[in-house]
Amino acid sequence: MSLTDTLNDTLNDTLNAIELADKNFMGEAQKRSDNLTKPSGSLGRLEELANIVCGIKRTLKPKTENKIIFTLAADHGVAEEGVSAFPQEVTKEMISNFVNGRAGVNVLARHVNAKVVVADLGVKGEILSSGVVIKKIAHGSKNFTKGSAMTREQAIKSIEYGIELVDEEMNNGAIDIAGTGDMGIANTTPSSAVVAAITGADAGKITGRGTGINNEIFNNKIRVIKKGLNLNKPNPDDAIDVLSKVGGFEIGGIAGVILGCAKNKIPVVIDGFISGAGALIAYKLNPLTKDYIIASHQSVEPGHKILLDYIGLKPLLNLNLRLGEGTGSALGINLVEASCKILNEMATFEEADVSKKIN
Amino acid sequence: MSLTDTLNDTLNDTLNAIELADKNFMGEAQKRSDNLTKPSGSLGRLEELANIVCGIKRTLKPKTENKIIFTLAADHGVAEEGVSAFPQEVTKEMISNFVNGRAGVNVLARHVNAKVVVADLGVKGEILSSGVVIKKIAHGSKNFTKGSAMTREQAIKSIEYGIELVDEEMNNGAIDIAGTGDMGIANTTPSSAVVAAITGADAGKITGRGTGINNEIFNNKIRVIKKGLNLNKPNPDDAIDVLSKVGGFEIGGIAGVILGCAKNKIPVVIDGFISGAGALIAYKLNPLTKDYIIASHQSVEPGHKILLDYIGLKPLLNLNLRLGEGTGSALGINLVEASCKILNEMATFEEADVSKKIN
Repeated sequence: MSLTDTLNDTLNDTLNAIELADKNFMGEAQKRSDNLTKPSGSLGRLEELANIVCGIKRTLKPKTENKIIFTLAADHGVAEEGVSAFPQEVTKEMISNFVNGRAGVNVLARHVNAKVVVADLGVKGEILSSGVVIKKIAHGSKNFTKGSAMTREQAIKSIEYGIELVDEEMNNGAIDIAGTGDMGIANTTPSSAVVAAITGADAGKITGRGTGINNEIFNNKIRVIKKGLNLNKPNPDDAIDVLSKVGGFEIGGIAGVILGCAKNKIPVVIDGFISGAGALIAYKLNPLTKDYIIASHQSVEPGHKILLDYIGLKPLLNLNLRLGEGTGSALGINLVEASCKILNEMATFEEADVSKKIN
Repeated sequence: MSLTDTLNDTLNDTLNAIELADKNFMGEAQKRSDNLTKPSGSLGRLEELANIVCGIKRTLKPKTENKIIFTLAADHGVAEEGVSAFPQEVTKEMISNFVNGRAGVNVLARHVNAKVVVADLGVKGEILSSGVVIKKIAHGSKNFTKGSAMTREQAIKSIEYGIELVDEEMNNGAIDIAGTGDMGIANTTPSSAVVAAITGADAGKITGRGTGINNEIFNNKIRVIKKGLNLNKPNPDDAIDVLSKVGGFEIGGIAGVILGCAKNKIPVVIDGFISGAGALIAYKLNPLTKDYIIASHQSVEPGHKILLDYIGLKPLLNLNLRLGEGTGSALGINLVEASCKILNEMATFEEADVSKKIN
């Protein structure tokens, strides 16, 4: 039985629809960049970013007008093991903060002129606000130290909900560039477990201090992750198995958003560690997805570098961020937009009548 | 005779007016930041940036509305030694490109909603455009392999012109945050010489490939810098002596802009290597200036890290930029603005009714 035999249509169709970015457009974009009034290559990674976007969108005039950050929320049964510095109700409380536009991601999204789409993939309790997209799978995942975090069907559903979020926004208008973000108390714990399961790296090397835990909780957190991995034995070659056994609903949803963006040929700027765990799931399901992912920043969480290296992504920023929500995505989207404006707005040597390089 | 005895009033008054940033406001800003709806410290360097701006401006509600990038241009006699990949007329040609809004700095400044003030400190030839502030000291500096690049009076004048640029813009309205940038074919050569003279580092370790020179020109460039240093013997403890013997007019102007910002309590985001050489001059003239300088990015030029370490500055971005003009400053200003918006716009735990950390 192949892996994809067990997947339903939405996910299967998405995985099959993802194509490589177009290398010809990337090359043509660099040629245009080389003819702009600056030394060739002098805008470094901004030039690379513009090339990537041109390759994704198959154009030399990439638009970045419609920017959406998908902030996905869920709760985690493993929170009852005392792995977080914050109480579980903060997940739900923060959703109100998002809707009111007063959380970190709202401020940074406004700053870069991006819209925030907040979705409930599995928050404990009912979310009544009309400002939240409800795609709830359950009232939190289960405690993975006592069994699977979710069923295989729920894992697939969480990914499909992420794909749907992208498709729905595309139907509402357009997405020129997307970002991912997360909210879920304790979610660095399942993210660490996912990264350990897939990369094979030791949980002790992956695990960080999340929202800011002390040594005692930190050591407990590592024990909890190891216990979950030993009990559930996720199959590293089956990303759905990993997600269902030790993951979380928003992690699956983020994987889905990334796959949905790849299918729709939209560059997707991922945030930090939790978004990275989602990206790892998406990448394992279809490695071509990598062409569509831009890593916004290097998180303080030690496992983040491990997963980015595994996929082969190099983060744009290193500002010691560890908030999540999509805050890093907002800053990354801004750099991608800057890179596209360079390509679209700068004069060529001919247009500006500027002399070229001598040798 | 003390150093300052030889300085005239504008420079002396400015140096004497510079105060340390206010540590109380920095501490109060961090306290406010710790009470915003996020784990304490989770926005990393964004939190630090907001603290710095609050310390500079003596406020907990820092404004970043009026953003100005000062792009200073000049030519360099040492260009005749064949140290650049581009012909000297590009300096003047690029000024038209700036005025037309089609150069890299214009695109990125528009992206971050900053104004670009272009000033001619010593371009070869007449600049006729009304869009350029003319503060011309000479039609290019002299070739420092044959004597001093400029007189001591000219060096002081270049710094004072930079101070004037800031004062004039303050009189025109306000500057909430400033950036620096440069244009001047061959100007990585005098910048390398300035950094070598002041830091004592070897010219071979400082010198880079500027706009993109081949091995032969690169080796010649190092020889030229060493020759200039050996001939002129700049006094590392006298920044004006260094600037006059091996510097350039825009480098002095940038030092002046930085001093002018420090005097006016304006955070100043410096660009790459040439702006860094200017910052080094400003820092040597008054080390308190350091409190007002924010390093936007780590340039590809190897001497940049050496000078940033010397001053004690840690760059925000590392995107392999080496264009100059203020392009990196624009991106850095955007991050500083983001950091201030976080402080101004995010809800506190109380305001949002979000539960606090347990332990």
